Amino acid sequence: MRNLTLLTDLYELTMMQGYFKTDNNRTVIFDAFHRKNPCDGAYAISCGLEQVIDYIKNLHFTEDDIAYLRSLSIFDEDFLEYLSNFHFTGDIYAIPEGTVIFPREPIVKVIAPIMEAQLVETAILNIINHQSLIATKAARVCYAAKGDGIMEFGLRRAQGPDAGIYGARAAVIAGCVGTSNVLTGQMFGVPVKGTHAHSWIMSFPDEYTAFKTYADLYPDACILLVDTYDTLRSGVPNAIRVFKEMREKGIDLKDYGIRLDSGDLAYLTKKARKMLDDAGFEDAIISASSDLDEYLIDSLKTQGAAITSWGVGTNLITSKDNPAFGGVYKLAAVMGDDGTFIPKIKLSENSEKITNPGNKTVYRVYDADGMIKADLIALADETYDESQPLLLFDPVETWKKTLMEPGEYSMREIMVKVFDKGECVYDSPNVMDIQKYCKQEQATLWDESKRLINPQVVHVDLSQKLYDLKQELLHNYGREKL
Amino acid sequence: MRNLTLLTDLYELTMMQGYFKTDNNRTVIFDAFHRKNPCDGAYAISCGLEQVIDYIKNLHFTEDDIAYLRSLSIFDEDFLEYLSNFHFTGDIYAIPEGTVIFPREPIVKVIAPIMEAQLVETAILNIINHQSLIATKAARVCYAAKGDGIMEFGLRRAQGPDAGIYGARAAVIAGCVGTSNVLTGQMFGVPVKGTHAHSWIMSFPDEYTAFKTYADLYPDACILLVDTYDTLRSGVPNAIRVFKEMREKGIDLKDYGIRLDSGDLAYLTKKARKMLDDAGFEDAIISASSDLDEYLIDSLKTQGAAITSWGVGTNLITSKDNPAFGGVYKLAAVMGDDGTFIPKIKLSENSEKITNPGNKTVYRVYDADGMIKADLIALADETYDESQPLLLFDPVETWKKTLMEPGEYSMREIMVKVFDKGECVYDSPNVMDIQKYCKQEQATLWDESKRLINPQVVHVDLSQKLYDLKQELLHNYGREKL
Repeated sequence: MRNLTLLTDLYELTMMQGYFKTDNNRTVIFDAFHRKNPCDGAYAISCGLEQVIDYIKNLHFTEDDIAYLRSLSIFDEDFLEYLSNFHFTGDIYAIPEGTVIFPREPIVKVIAPIMEAQLVETAILNIINHQSLIATKAARVCYAAKGDGIMEFGLRRAQGPDAGIYGARAAVIAGCVGTSNVLTGQMFGVPVKGTHAHSWIMSFPDEYTAFKTYADLYPDACILLVDTYDTLRSGVPNAIRVFKEMREKGIDLKDYGIRLDSGDLAYLTKKARKMLDDAGFEDAIISASSDLDEYLIDSLKTQGAAITSWGVGTNLITSKDNPAFGGVYKLAAVMGDDGTFIPKIKLSENSEKITNPGNKTVYRVYDADGMIKADLIALADETYDESQPLLLFDPVETWKKTLMEPGEYSMREIMVKVFDKGECVYDSPNVMDIQKYCKQEQATLWDESKRLINPQVVHVDLSQKLYDLKQELLHNYGREKL
Repeated sequence: MRNLTLLTDLYELTMMQGYFKTDNNRTVIFDAFHRKNPCDGAYAISCGLEQVIDYIKNLHFTEDDIAYLRSLSIFDEDFLEYLSNFHFTGDIYAIPEGTVIFPREPIVKVIAPIMEAQLVETAILNIINHQSLIATKAARVCYAAKGDGIMEFGLRRAQGPDAGIYGARAAVIAGCVGTSNVLTGQMFGVPVKGTHAHSWIMSFPDEYTAFKTYADLYPDACILLVDTYDTLRSGVPNAIRVFKEMREKGIDLKDYGIRLDSGDLAYLTKKARKMLDDAGFEDAIISASSDLDEYLIDSLKTQGAAITSWGVGTNLITSKDNPAFGGVYKLAAVMGDDGTFIPKIKLSENSEKITNPGNKTVYRVYDADGMIKADLIALADETYDESQPLLLFDPVETWKKTLMEPGEYSMREIMVKVFDKGECVYDSPNVMDIQKYCKQEQATLWDESKRLINPQVVHVDLSQKLYDLKQELLHNYGREKL
């Protein structure tokens, strides 16, 4: 396991030393949350928790790390000594991977002495921001494909090895049927797929020989790339010739077909479909790629493109139109001398940026059909009873209220405990199980909230108690601080 | 060193097995190049070669790797046996890191048996695409800052750990004065910087106490974050109070000042500058961040914002408006039975996508002032003599010609040999030396080509011999292939 302990911003360490030197290592609560969904969507998919857990478990400063920090001439020996014995001793709560999430909900909550809570900020955000971004993008792409398989194959355009490795993991969690990335396959047991490139075709004297050679080698997964020279005049006819020869040899054609990686995909796939059908290959797969994203897939579907399998590269693995998730990590409470938490709030001229104070959790509220009605951020010590009516209200326009009677709703707390006093108490499911869970999660979202453009916002309300606390802090703020 | 051998697309391995089974492991030449500069710029910065070298050196299939590939049920034992003894035996040429590059120039050229050349495609592209992207973006950001220091601090928004680690490396190469990323500092010996966050301020009873505590701890690098509560009414006055106390104590204020992370940076920094100046702190640094990129920095400069140091996060580390570099890896030649290379060309309806055939190299042509006049892609066996006139012509509009007389120009071949028969023959400079070289490189670009919007294109011409070869292949193509 890689040692990512120094994968942090220097200011985390200068602040840590500050707390160390002033003997001010109070227990605090930090929330990691996002303020806006990628791509103006109505939801996001939480992802990356397994790697956060690995990071926390493995957190330690090696002798080399200490020597490096000493070389910076800003850390004293007593602090370096402290670091050399450092391990994480706090509690962490999180929303499990693959869960549908909404802005301002704590995705990860860290309760720990401030020196520890501060050190882990950067890596937690890095990991959660990246994987939640790609999972969210992949969910959008899969939604556009309406049940067709989406292959992730963006490794060569990913922002470095990890972006390829963990981006493919996130893409599969959100619904991709597989990835081209062999290392991700090995590390996470997800399906890997791939056939050949244009260079395969070009390295043979002619296209037919290249196809035939490939078909002889891989008769059970024979997807032929038909656009190296001329898709309709050369590629598809040569593919049909090879499929005919395979059939004549008695090969049971199953997972076979063609792939296009360029050109007008709507026009070419409709023509290719007809050529394949006319030759008796009605079940041949037509796989397409070429700078696809959710919008282009949606458009090709509308145009009746005869594509049954989609390869998505750059635009998915970088979330090209929105390449950052924007998760932040904000102080929510500081333990007072009496051992109880004092809630903290961060003001901003922008109301959206005002934080929710205190030790919180998140409930999901479903309607009688099991669809998401709203989410409710509450204080962690609040309890709810489904046999009682539940009043939800908008935290800004508070006159917008919904009263739900018993039987009309159900609730589920979506945060789970992951670390208890530094010990991991959570087993990450394997990726394919998370994929299943994520599919169920997406099924609880209305289509109106999943649509690609101008989706219906899902309400995230505050409990009455949290709302009151927030108002109290807001109104007392000027007096206390300025 | 991490084993990234399986960081490849599955199709590289299925093609490899295809070449293995058909006993068709001819030596080939592949070029990695980009077709378009990021952000509609006129140039890019090559970056990532050191990591490519590490990857190639470390290329080997472990027993676990072989076992995993076996589990996929698509590879035969003889091929797996071959892989278990695999190492790279080819030649690699590359343009050194930090070099200014232009579209269609081979950044990396691989000459190797096709099985090897194919395997390494994905990782080479992944690494070069990522780091060249971030280096190019960072060069743009530094250009906008007109000599002010740019700090890279995007780790929390980077697309995974590597994107943060190697993105920061690339940013420093292109000119950033440092990074917040401690791990990058440790790995590459680059400056790391950072002070404190809003949480530091919020964890104290009041802002003044937070500042004073910080100043006591770090009197030599005292940059105070002034925007937690109210920048002009609270933050700056409290900072000035602390600076006065430091001065009264006889502390020699050097590397000190304020940092703003929100609000109207033009307005606030001008006001803050006046407040600091009026209090006798004319040399206090004003550092600013908040969703900055090259365009916003340029705008703030135009507005006369009093910022002397800039922190750039998300928009740099993800190259947000252009998050993929788009480098490709194309077959340029295949060795014939007689041991000479047969040039290969890939056609496309889009002329820009037609590849340059053959075994090539790249010359940079400078004018008498040492500024870049044009680049010349030539065949590797061509030689040039600066005592002779040099005729350059546009490879599309061939009537556009420039004749340069001896003394009016100089030339330099910008590709170097990196691997010779599998042995590394190149020492990567350290990052700070690459930064110096990259600064010199950028100084050879005209301002007109560096400007952010609508820059002057730098011409990349073909040698007469390469031009003739390309025309011949283009015109013979239809006959041969269809």
